[in-house]
Parts: sequence; structure tokens; C-alpha cells
Amino acid sequence: MLVELVTTGSELLLGEISNVDVQYLSQQLNTMGYSVIYHTTVGDNPQRMKQVLETALGRADMVITTGGLGPTQGDMTKIIGAEVMDAPLEFREDVMEGVVAWIKLRHPERDLTENQRRQAMIPKGADVLTNEAGTAPGTALYKSGKVLIHLPGPPSEMKWVFDHSVKPWLYERFGSQGYIYSSYMRIYDMGEARIEETIMDLVKNQSEPTLAMYARIGYVEIRITAKGETKEAAQNLVEPMKEKLAERLGDVIITYDDEPIAAALGRTARKKGLTVSAAESCTGGLVGSYITDIAGSSAYFLGSAGTYQDEIKAKLLGVPEKTLQTYTAVSEETAAAMAEGSRALYGSDVAVSTTGIAGPDGGTDEQPVGLVYFGVAGPKGTVVYKSVFPGDRKEVKERAATKAVYHLLQYMRERL
Amino acid sequence: MLVELVTTGSELLLGEISNVDVQYLSQQLNTMGYSVIYHTTVGDNPQRMKQVLETALGRADMVITTGGLGPTQGDMTKIIGAEVMDAPLEFREDVMEGVVAWIKLRHPERDLTENQRRQAMIPKGADVLTNEAGTAPGTALYKSGKVLIHLPGPPSEMKWVFDHSVKPWLYERFGSQGYIYSSYMRIYDMGEARIEETIMDLVKNQSEPTLAMYARIGYVEIRITAKGETKEAAQNLVEPMKEKLAERLGDVIITYDDEPIAAALGRTARKKGLTVSAAESCTGGLVGSYITDIAGSSAYFLGSAGTYQDEIKAKLLGVPEKTLQTYTAVSEETAAAMAEGSRALYGSDVAVSTTGIAGPDGGTDEQPVGLVYFGVAGPKGTVVYKSVFPGDRKEVKERAATKAVYHLLQYMRERL
Repeated sequence: MLVELVTTGSELLLGEISNVDVQYLSQQLNTMGYSVIYHTTVGDNPQRMKQVLETALGRADMVITTGGLGPTQGDMTKIIGAEVMDAPLEFREDVMEGVVAWIKLRHPERDLTENQRRQAMIPKGADVLTNEAGTAPGTALYKSGKVLIHLPGPPSEMKWVFDHSVKPWLYERFGSQGYIYSSYMRIYDMGEARIEETIMDLVKNQSEPTLAMYARIGYVEIRITAKGETKEAAQNLVEPMKEKLAERLGDVIITYDDEPIAAALGRTARKKGLTVSAAESCTGGLVGSYITDIAGSSAYFLGSAGTYQDEIKAKLLGVPEKTLQTYTAVSEETAAAMAEGSRALYGSDVAVSTTGIAGPDGGTDEQPVGLVYFGVAGPKGTVVYKSVFPGDRKEVKERAATKAVYHLLQYMRERL
Repeated sequence: MLVELVTTGSELLLGEISNVDVQYLSQQLNTMGYSVIYHTTVGDNPQRMKQVLETALGRADMVITTGGLGPTQGDMTKIIGAEVMDAPLEFREDVMEGVVAWIKLRHPERDLTENQRRQAMIPKGADVLTNEAGTAPGTALYKSGKVLIHLPGPPSEMKWVFDHSVKPWLYERFGSQGYIYSSYMRIYDMGEARIEETIMDLVKNQSEPTLAMYARIGYVEIRITAKGETKEAAQNLVEPMKEKLAERLGDVIITYDDEPIAAALGRTARKKGLTVSAAESCTGGLVGSYITDIAGSSAYFLGSAGTYQDEIKAKLLGVPEKTLQTYTAVSEETAAAMAEGSRALYGSDVAVSTTGIAGPDGGTDEQPVGLVYFGVAGPKGTVVYKSVFPGDRKEVKERAATKAVYHLLQYMRERL
């Protein structure tokens, strides 16, 4: 089934935001065996939007729009969709009740506004796509052999509605469309060129499954993809290649699919019955945030001590004043003392520390922006590492926090 | 001048990569006074690409494509563009010399392949757009009142060609198109519908400048945009509206343009000579990370104590065991004690705390997933707040960390 995705909103045409919706929907629909053949973006202009929807419904079997379902004047997608499909909007009391309940629960202090009624207007004959992530429900209309689906624009709402409401609706209406199966591997400590050298022959001879490689922030991702009648058939094409790669690359593959490295940390900590903690300077708390992105992390994570000043490093972590004076806060010695201090403070089995220069200011020839020291302290002693990361302040923090989790994980894997 | 951007490539339709090209070109062209009114993405299918280019040239004055200029069979954009514009491709010896020189310089070990001649085929009457970032030059054709520009697909090449070759070409052909200036405001504690009610008359009567509103994660953004002959002229149209909105909305506008709320926190802390700290449970360290996203935050930020366990809350922050037992860790009482504990631990002037249920598990009827308590402790006493956030675990953490910074800021603004 051929699909066109129509995204709306002038912030896309102005280039103010990247089109997250279109990428997510393309991934999902292709995986489900639908063929996405066009993406179109149009602004809040009724004539142009109408023409775009007419063209889309002429050349695709299914058109999915995002954006323009909110309560304000600029939100016109549903109105124009109703016109093009000749399915007038009707006020639905039951939908309004849902909108009201959602707002009352989250914002009991807010009054309802008259324009919120717009969100309960549904095209005649359409099904309502429940949205528990926001107030605007989606709608799905199947009429005269064509499908028109409207989804909310904010990515978190769009994803919720697609995953929980669109997928079952499509399956019920059209059954299985075949399956595209992809498997991913994340590598944290080997460059793209080196990986390619290692698996070059496999990349060159690829046809089914196909192999692709992407440089992400802090890691390289390898993707293996195949299409089959069923998920199992596609998976059976992918698995042998996955095994070949695992054999070839071995331990450098840290996680599979969309798992962040903190998930591998969690598995290893649980398996070995170890607790972990952190002490952060330049990352400010991001290491703790990454570790707690994993549900259930309270089983092994005790906390992270943010120490953004020399005095606090001394007071909370017991970093000797002399170490700070002799070597400065950005040094191997301070990183080691911070990790040991975190271990003592929290009573954890293993602790990691970060101290460095996130920039944009504060760099020198000896200590450039991007320089970060890491310490890992545990029952097998303390080790320190050094990196110099590229990128702006935020990217340096992200790369450093990712690397800190990596060092913590490797300590547990290799020494405990 | 109306512009349509046509991006090509199946990796976009498969959702494997985000469409960096379209965002960059939109930003650049809009700022230069061109109006980007459509984005279209199409795959490597000759019929569909032809139809897309015909439609685009029918509804826009200028069409810019990216992708499909490489040496392989799938690279067909230029061929189809030549057909649609009735400008047959001609082999250009001078262009071929450039292609050869580029390859020899970067990859002396590689042999030239026959299909690299494709890159030296230029539509009749078109200008060549030099590309020093890769082998494939761009082309620009102005014929019968329409402009068709082809750019390479890899973002680094596309950017180089746009900046160095397209901009001067456009300026020479069409002169200045004026300037588009935008100003942004961020509001953290008022819903979209309520904001619109407050400024409805301004929204309804908008023409120049225009007003738009976006729901982001944790805040609402208002954008004011105007077009003028020069940057100053555009700015002069935006400023009066900015003042009107500032008057109408007052203190709820926390930051302008792309500033995160932590920047406002930094300004207020510096102005009032206050130091701040945090104590985090459900946010895991994200509050500290947000505050340290701001360069120079070490001037007022002391650190954030990550306390992910009851015992650690008791040990580090002095939360009474009895409070934890009687009210649980997710309560007003614990939030208050955590904030007070962080203030004592770091010796800060004001401290904020977070404790809640990030999900996906651990929720009950009384304590649903998304429930977060905040405490703020300072010289004017301790206050607590409660929120219930939508979204998945990561989004709950982001919303909660943003709100924590907001409460910390408001305490300093209103009480100190």
C-alpha cells in the first residue's frame, strides 16, 4: 500500500525545527510493510493545503498528516481534510469529555477555553484515535478506497497515537503488509573506518540483508535489514549476518537495537550484584541522568554527587585540597580522588567520575576545551582515562557522559 | 519569490536519516527573503520524480533539488530535471577536469571510472555551481521565468555549494530579496489556549509581523516574524509587537530567542548574588545538567546531590527516616526535606529538589506515573509544588527538570 506523509506547519518551512514526525512515521510504516513514497510539507495556508491533500490522495492509497489539530486558529488540517474527503466535521460529546478530563487531571487550575471545543470535532464516519499524551485526538477515515489519517504534531503525542491507536487500527482494517526487520548494533570504542575495514567483505557483498553504518554522538551504529512475508521470515534473513558480525567484531558491540549503553550497564550490574554511583563535575549530572533513563535503575544506582566547585569536591568527596592545588580540578589525580570519594560517600561497589572543560571558555594550550578526565574506583583499584571531545558545550557533555558510562561498564566487565 | 525544495533519496523515505538538507536550505533561504512554501521528498523513481518536478515548477518560481548527482545509476535528478526544463545535458570538458583534479588530490590511489563522466554532464544553458567539498558540482538554470537548481545530497557538500556558489549566483541574478527577522519568547507556566485568549486580538489581526505559537516540551514558544528590505527594517516591524506582548503577558515570558530557562536562572542568580544547588531523585541528575548547560554556571551553581535511594536521602540530605516511612519518598514532606538538605550540604542560598515517579512502572492510583513533587528551600522558607506530567520516562524527566529550574528561578525572583 502506497503512503504519502503530509507534515504541516510554518516552523518546518522556516527550517526552525527538524521534521522528527516524518522520520519516525517513515521508519514505522516501512517496518510494517507499507511503502512510503512521498513526503510533503506545507504551511498554514488553506488553498495550498487543500491542493496538497488532493494531490496526495490522488497518487497514494493512504495519506497521513501531522500537525494542525490544536485548539488555535492556525490549526486547520482537520478542517481541510474533512472538505477534501467530503466528510463534514461533527461535534462529539464523548471526545469532548476526554479532552476535558485530560486537562482537569493535568492542569486543575486552568479554565477550559471555548476554542478547546475544536478538538472534539471529528469528520463524519471517521474513527477517533485515542491520544493519552495530549488533548488533541487523531482521526482515521477510510472512504472510497482511500485512507486519510490526522495525527497531532508534537512528536511525543504523534508517537503515542501512532503506537497505541494507528497501528491496531491499520492491522484491523488491512491486516499484515509483510514485514521489514532491522537489527542494530552499537559500538562505542572503534571508529567507523576501522569497523568498515573489519567487515568490508560483508558490506561489499550485501544484497539481502543489507548493511549500513552511521556515526552517532558517542558511538557508531550498524544496521542489518531484510524484508519478509512475516516478521520471522525477515528475522531469519537477518540473524545469520548478525551472528557473523558478532563473531567478527566481538566485545566491541555493547548494545543491540535502540538500547542506550546505560541499559548494558544495568544488566551487568544486576548480573554481578553490584551497586554503582558517580561524581560529576563537567557533566553536571548528565551521567546520573543517563543511568536513570533506564527503568528499574534504582536496583543498582545509588546516586551521583554533582560537585561543581573545588570546595564542594573537597567537602563531599574528600578530594585533598593539596591535589586540587597541585594538579588543578581537571587532572588525573582529581578524577581518581573524585571516584574514590563517590564510592565512599554512597557506599557503592564501583563509582565513576568526570572532570573536564566543557567550554566554550576556559580552555588553554595544555587543557583545551573538550578535555575530560574520568576515574573509576572499585574493589580492584582505581583507573583513570583521558579524552578530548569535539563539539560545542552540550555535545562535549553528552560525549563525556556516554564515555563515563562506558568506562564504568568496562570496569565491571573486565575486572569484577 | 516562491521556492519549493525537492529532496531525493530512499534513505529519507525509509526514515533512516533526518532531512538535514531541507532544514538548512529553509533557514538560509527564508533569512535571505525567499519564501519556502513546499518541501517534497521523492525516491529514485523516474516517473514519480518527473511528476514531482513538473508540479513543483508549476507552483513555485524556483525549485531546488538535493541528491542524485553522484556517478551511479540511481543518480537521476539531473537527467530528469534536464528533460522537464527541455535543456539537454551536454558534456563539459572543463567540468570533467575539475572532477578529475578533485579525485586525484583526495584519493590518488583510486582509478577513475567511466560513470564519473556523468558528473560533467550539464543542462544546456545552465551555470555550473562549484563544489570544493566533493566531486559532483551543482547546476543552476534560469529559463522561461523559472529557476531549477540541483545540489549534491551529502549535507557537507550541499552546504558548501549553497554558501559559496548558490548565494552569489542568486544575488547576481535576482538582487536582494529583503530580510526575514524572527524573535521568540518562551512561556513556562501558562497553557497554549490561555495564552491565545490573552493575546487573541493580536493574533487575529496579525499580518506584518506574524505571530505563531508552539507547544514545546515544558514550555510554549511564541514567534514574531516580519520581512523587511533590510535586517533593521524587519527588526523595526518586530519590536513594537514584542513590546506589546511583553506588556500583555508580563512576567510569564521567561526567556527570549533560543535561550533555555537555565540562562534566565543564571542571570537572576548573578544579579542577586545568590548561589544555588539541587537534590534530585526522579530526575537523576538532569536538573544539574540543565543548569550546567549554561557557560559560566560555575559562578553560581554548587552542585546537585543525586539521591536515588531512601538511605542516601537520609544520609546525604538528612531527610528524617520517619518522614520517609510516614509519607514515602514521593511526598511533599520528603521534597521539602530534600531541598533543605541540599541547602545545608552545599551551603547554597537556594536549593531545589525533585522526587517522583518517572515510570513506566511504580505508579498507583494515589501516586500515578508522572507525579513529581518539588521543594524549594531558601532564606524565605521552604515551598513545595506538585505536578503530574504526561509522556514516557524520558519526557517525564525532562519536563520535571525544566519545572524544577522554573520553581528555583521563581523563588529567587519573587522572594529574594
